Amino acid sequence: MVATGDGAHAAHSHGTHAAHGRDSQHEWASVLSGGRGNHAHEHAGRETVDEHAARIRAMTETVLAMASELVPLADALYRVTAEAVLSPVDLPLFRNSQMDGFALRREELAVLPASFPIVAEIPAQPGIPAPLAPGTAARIMTGAVAPDGATVVVPVENATVEDGVVTVESVPSESYLRERGSDARAGDELLPAGLRLASRHLAVIAAAGLDEVTVRRRVRVGILTTGAELIEPGTPPATGQVFDANAVALAAAIDAAGADVGYRERVADDVVAFSAALERAVAVCDLVVTSGGISEGAYEVVRETLEPLGARVVHIQMQPGGPQATAVFDGTPIIGFPGNPVSTQLSFEILLAPLLRSVAGLPAAVVERRELAVSVTSVPNRRQYLRARLRPDGTVEPVSGPGSHLVAGLAASDRLIVLAESAGFVAAGEIVETLLL
Amino acid sequence: MVATGDGAHAAHSHGTHAAHGRDSQHEWASVLSGGRGNHAHEHAGRETVDEHAARIRAMTETVLAMASELVPLADALYRVTAEAVLSPVDLPLFRNSQMDGFALRREELAVLPASFPIVAEIPAQPGIPAPLAPGTAARIMTGAVAPDGATVVVPVENATVEDGVVTVESVPSESYLRERGSDARAGDELLPAGLRLASRHLAVIAAAGLDEVTVRRRVRVGILTTGAELIEPGTPPATGQVFDANAVALAAAIDAAGADVGYRERVADDVVAFSAALERAVAVCDLVVTSGGISEGAYEVVRETLEPLGARVVHIQMQPGGPQATAVFDGTPIIGFPGNPVSTQLSFEILLAPLLRSVAGLPAAVVERRELAVSVTSVPNRRQYLRARLRPDGTVEPVSGPGSHLVAGLAASDRLIVLAESAGFVAAGEIVETLLL
Repeated sequence: MVATGDGAHAAHSHGTHAAHGRDSQHEWASVLSGGRGNHAHEHAGRETVDEHAARIRAMTETVLAMASELVPLADALYRVTAEAVLSPVDLPLFRNSQMDGFALRREELAVLPASFPIVAEIPAQPGIPAPLAPGTAARIMTGAVAPDGATVVVPVENATVEDGVVTVESVPSESYLRERGSDARAGDELLPAGLRLASRHLAVIAAAGLDEVTVRRRVRVGILTTGAELIEPGTPPATGQVFDANAVALAAAIDAAGADVGYRERVADDVVAFSAALERAVAVCDLVVTSGGISEGAYEVVRETLEPLGARVVHIQMQPGGPQATAVFDGTPIIGFPGNPVSTQLSFEILLAPLLRSVAGLPAAVVERRELAVSVTSVPNRRQYLRARLRPDGTVEPVSGPGSHLVAGLAASDRLIVLAESAGFVAAGEIVETLLL
Repeated sequence: MVATGDGAHAAHSHGTHAAHGRDSQHEWASVLSGGRGNHAHEHAGRETVDEHAARIRAMTETVLAMASELVPLADALYRVTAEAVLSPVDLPLFRNSQMDGFALRREELAVLPASFPIVAEIPAQPGIPAPLAPGTAARIMTGAVAPDGATVVVPVENATVEDGVVTVESVPSESYLRERGSDARAGDELLPAGLRLASRHLAVIAAAGLDEVTVRRRVRVGILTTGAELIEPGTPPATGQVFDANAVALAAAIDAAGADVGYRERVADDVVAFSAALERAVAVCDLVVTSGGISEGAYEVVRETLEPLGARVVHIQMQPGGPQATAVFDGTPIIGFPGNPVSTQLSFEILLAPLLRSVAGLPAAVVERRELAVSVTSVPNRRQYLRARLRPDGTVEPVSGPGSHLVAGLAASDRLIVLAESAGFVAAGEIVETLLL
């Protein structure tokens, strides 16, 4: 301890200290904040990642339940069917020709070769052709209505024509006629409920004459980013200001998880402003995600606003992403993530994205077991998510230190190495679990 | 041959026939169309799938080349960077605290425990704090500007506070200070060119203060569906009419392949109308896809319009999807697919989607080798794409006959079984190549 004379108070060592850190924090926070609010932080026995994830799942279960809406087919790509799609019609709608060729009566091909005058031409177009008289042929195009009486189509390449007469030398092995209803009958299930619609699914819905489909409504997620230091990217920063990466990154992550951004606002560290923003957000969203404002310091606007309302603000056994919060505001789930962009992105990926993806019919994140290229030492009592990338030899290596501030490191990663709470030292060559980003 | 007296002409067997099927087709088409157009169909030696795919790749190479555009970050999810993104600033922008705690001079912790008066409080906010005088401590929040003179931050949980004095009992193993530029330096490459942007990439771009990014322009594809028999889904059909499934299904397939639909129109079997539609489409699209109108019959509007202009209309060794066409119209590539929706979807998937996905930075379709659940017999001289699904035991089975009309069958599939041109009979239990849909 160095004592100097330039205005600093002499430092004294006190014989007695406050009993332990936690009480000092309470005391300090109390001193700074003028004693307001409830500071019963959950320090005894940190929750695990899985426990916190389960809490989030439980509190969002209702809002993620399957409300549905009718949308035009043109807007239905990648939406998830809310109910089975039944065909309103027989498909094909009418008996038609599978080939370009000649419509004939099969029994008239008993003796070959056989020749017939071509008495009609039937293109694929609206209208009902005249019945096929015995002893005659009708030139018919693919998809055209088959005339009554015809029981076979001889493909054009298996027939010869001269002077308006067609001659057939061999009997086709099949009729080349598509019977009405041979693809689907009216009332048949074309597609099941819970199916994420790709183009081939839209094709069958349209082919059945439907122009709309009932799908699961997309979840609307609100985003509130907090921090007096935040400014919009693209504006020149004063010292102390940082660009708000979370607004755009959370919006993109929500979109990628199959949900919609229902509301977005950046709020300063002001409880009144934050409460007002929350009210606006919950009015139009199924759930709201916040970033920042939940740590141990002062000026933690999310914690200060929501703890008096019964929010749980905890530290979970996760790194990065220890500080976490959950609350209900006007009946709407609020999920509070830490403010550092890497922590925010990983908190979203681990704790919320799986639920949203499930609603949207998206596959879960891919888990692979890979060999470590270098040894790592994990932080005790934390499940650690190391930013990593796949090497050409198939091993994985961390791309940056485990510290949570390296947003460029996260951008350079394609995977997370997941180290269990008790992992300790893990040597190069050992197999680890990785999550594909 | 049955002769009847009810008005049909007596059928006669001619002693001489036209030499072979092809000449008869030419003669017939000539008779029907009044002799117009060039009918040099490519029958001698059908092209393979790969040859035709290579032709399409060659003719679209220029339009798929990497034009770029600047887009706001909010619109950049899943876009592909056209150039490397360089950081315009150092990250972090300023030296800041990684923890909530107390900023101190490390050398003042040589003798422990050490106590310091807390002379300042530094939140994360704009502004430059006063330098830290020797012998003093500043309370500092995560992300706040580190005061000049401070060389370490002691986390709040490792300190005790009483009466405005903080006491430290152990020296932190690290500084918990993030130096300016420790994540990235101005000029560093944050992201490479050719990267498909996910939310974590947008996070680093925003964190560097950028609100726009230069990305590859999305390919604009036009869709012209042809057929006098086509009507819009949702309208009541007359006999002979079928719902236009291709318009919506191709639009969705193009979107799913990472491109935009630049133009869409349904055209009747009329050369004048089709030419006019083509002119409108090529004015706003990089390439145009057509469905229908390229078969062997009469009223084949795509063939009839484009063959005089030098189009190639061929049958390739593919099933479904034998009839194919390629043309250039006003310098724009035109790719003609057959009209049956299953053939259209599969033609797009095999011949065009891979090129579009590559431009859009999307992964190629997954190829897996799977065991056949039942035996199949392929069509000789055709590469066959059987609609199939994965069974719970991991084998694959066809979901419907190989015929090209079963649009409900395609919808029920999740894979294609690819059978080589020479496959013949393939027994249950053998391993086949499958393409994931």
